[in-house]
Amino acid sequence: MTDLEQMGQKAVQAKYILQKLSSEQKDKLLRYAAEQLRLGRKEILAANAEDIALGEQNGMHAGLLDRLRLTEDRIDAMAEGLTQVAELPDCIGEVMESFERPNGLKIEKRRVPLGVIGIIYESRPNVTADAFGLCFKTGNAVILKGGSDALHSNIAITKILRRALSLCDLPEDAIQLIEDRDRAVTAQFMRLNQYVDVLIPRGGAGLIRNVVENSTVPVIETGTGNCHVYVDKDADLAMAVDIIYNAKTQRIGVCNACESLVIHRDIREVFLPKLAEKLRSRNVEMRGDEQIREILPDCTAATEEDYGKEYLDYIISMKTVESVEEAIAHINRYNTKHSECIVTNNPDTAERFLNEVDAACVYVNASTRFTDGFEFGFGAEIGISTQKLHARGPMGLRELTSYKYTIRGNGQIRG
Amino acid sequence: MTDLEQMGQKAVQAKYILQKLSSEQKDKLLRYAAEQLRLGRKEILAANAEDIALGEQNGMHAGLLDRLRLTEDRIDAMAEGLTQVAELPDCIGEVMESFERPNGLKIEKRRVPLGVIGIIYESRPNVTADAFGLCFKTGNAVILKGGSDALHSNIAITKILRRALSLCDLPEDAIQLIEDRDRAVTAQFMRLNQYVDVLIPRGGAGLIRNVVENSTVPVIETGTGNCHVYVDKDADLAMAVDIIYNAKTQRIGVCNACESLVIHRDIREVFLPKLAEKLRSRNVEMRGDEQIREILPDCTAATEEDYGKEYLDYIISMKTVESVEEAIAHINRYNTKHSECIVTNNPDTAERFLNEVDAACVYVNASTRFTDGFEFGFGAEIGISTQKLHARGPMGLRELTSYKYTIRGNGQIRG
Repeated sequence: MTDLEQMGQKAVQAKYILQKLSSEQKDKLLRYAAEQLRLGRKEILAANAEDIALGEQNGMHAGLLDRLRLTEDRIDAMAEGLTQVAELPDCIGEVMESFERPNGLKIEKRRVPLGVIGIIYESRPNVTADAFGLCFKTGNAVILKGGSDALHSNIAITKILRRALSLCDLPEDAIQLIEDRDRAVTAQFMRLNQYVDVLIPRGGAGLIRNVVENSTVPVIETGTGNCHVYVDKDADLAMAVDIIYNAKTQRIGVCNACESLVIHRDIREVFLPKLAEKLRSRNVEMRGDEQIREILPDCTAATEEDYGKEYLDYIISMKTVESVEEAIAHINRYNTKHSECIVTNNPDTAERFLNEVDAACVYVNASTRFTDGFEFGFGAEIGISTQKLHARGPMGLRELTSYKYTIRGNGQIRG
Repeated sequence: MTDLEQMGQKAVQAKYILQKLSSEQKDKLLRYAAEQLRLGRKEILAANAEDIALGEQNGMHAGLLDRLRLTEDRIDAMAEGLTQVAELPDCIGEVMESFERPNGLKIEKRRVPLGVIGIIYESRPNVTADAFGLCFKTGNAVILKGGSDALHSNIAITKILRRALSLCDLPEDAIQLIEDRDRAVTAQFMRLNQYVDVLIPRGGAGLIRNVVENSTVPVIETGTGNCHVYVDKDADLAMAVDIIYNAKTQRIGVCNACESLVIHRDIREVFLPKLAEKLRSRNVEMRGDEQIREILPDCTAATEEDYGKEYLDYIISMKTVESVEEAIAHINRYNTKHSECIVTNNPDTAERFLNEVDAACVYVNASTRFTDGFEFGFGAEIGISTQKLHARGPMGLRELTSYKYTIRGNGQIRG
């Protein structure tokens, strides 16, 4: 049995205990773990300093170094995250449906934990505590494979969380960290079907593609967002400018940022100059088709590739259409099924867009930036699913659960 | 672009039309297709005769030949299946939840089709019509890869269904059949993520393992059932005999049949002779541990392998335990998370079993044979899921759907 299989077995042992815990037991642990993280600041910062030093030695990019760096405030934020999860209602055990069959069988559909969740993520060490909090609250054991860059930090955080579990007489294997940097181990992790119920990758497009392509464990695909805003001919143009400006520039490196603009031809002459003025104030590079370039001379020519691209940068692609149908077809062709918006005051056009655009979240007259577990009021978020199986859009606690049917009879047999 | 990619593209084009159809349009087509199947009996039977002749030539096993063989009655049953699906309520468009955020955003969670469903199955040609009916009713396009043995039959059935679609001015690509026998094509089908939203394998353990191991498209794992009945010390023993007899022998080749018996030590002397008498009447081979063999001399020794086995035959493995805890641990170790039963009159023991056994369906005092979409009242069944993601247990129409969030605002942007 490999080390990884042993971890799998330990996680399974832990899951049987976790699924039985009361809400009080779980919330108490989460608060205690938060306290231990605060008390362990020094320990965590020392480990993080090692990761930072190695990163600097290896010439790590400033942006990545920033994501990797922990501070007292960031550790407090991790701790606060656990406390917030403790405050959320516990959905485990909830009876989702109940019905009785003509033969007298009483069937209940009850919410249960998924079991063992695997999470593969990149350089942000705060994911270690966040993911544990959400998985633990929902009665799941978690096995984490963080980025090698953050290994020391992740080890330190995991150690504190396991110690907290142990001090509360709970199974410390509720959280386990894969410390091996070998890619072969990650590959094996993705095929640990016997023990792991679901894998959630969190990170860039490359990481997610790797997990989707190589995992035999069921995956929830998260992340990539090539999000569009369509400005209809019946749009409030001032509102459209505000929404696009917000969705494009409020935070550029996130999956719910706007990457592409679709605009009805009838309004381009009035609308585009206003929009361009606003976008230029943040030096957003515009790439559009001929009809847009006729009006905006500083707009460069968009290629086919541009329309399919998640820039995560101060760049926006722009496309002219002649109708909402054409807008919908363009979006459905190029989008990543994440978040799409129409700006219009025409209720029929809005309804059509809502129905026909294929995406997790479809907006009328609001920024795509609201696709977020907290903004949706879930109180938590493990990621944004872009697949249709199991969970779609922002995933909170409920999305980390499954269900089971319980059936009570009095001797029924099948005829 | 390969033929398969073209099929994927056509399925995507069809899905955008299917998702917009009214319930009336869908039900009308289903009834019309049923009529066309009945009218096409001769065409289907002629094609089926070719498959049967080839099967006989190739020395196909009698059981498989029977599964492959169509008769007028079986064709009528396929047609009747489509009519029944037309009678079921349409869940597409249902508002599953709706809520308003403090910033005024109105969020609705609406039920939508999955999109494009791929189904890989074995020799029963009736799956072709059944799967189409369920997928079509839920607004999904389906791409089918049936067993090579049934190719002529599947082509004939698909042709009739596509003709029915076309005559109703609906996209005939709502159903497409992969006719290529090449395994490489099936392998490519399993990686058609760009077009296919989910793959559902239907068939034996080997087929399912192959799909789980090689598919990059999300899979719903169905099928294998190593189902247990645990006879508690507080059981009604006559009821236990009836339940085990039913679950073991009423139909042996199905996933919800009982394969293994777990028995509390305290009742073995009274219970086992009664049970054995009943099982012997159907020549069920018993394989048990030492404590069982002390009482039943014709019981052979069970190996480790026996406890993990789905026999699908007149064989049952038997294990003695000293407590419900031990029974639960044994079941959780060897089961396939399908259907498990306790026979007991003790409500505390029952509750514990219901909570702690990890399976899609957990029964108290009823046969495991009820794990079935029709028996659960879903009116349909595409399979029994043994995974925890998306759907667990019997899958009816709702399990072939996803959801999308629609969000209506009046200019909200994120601060």
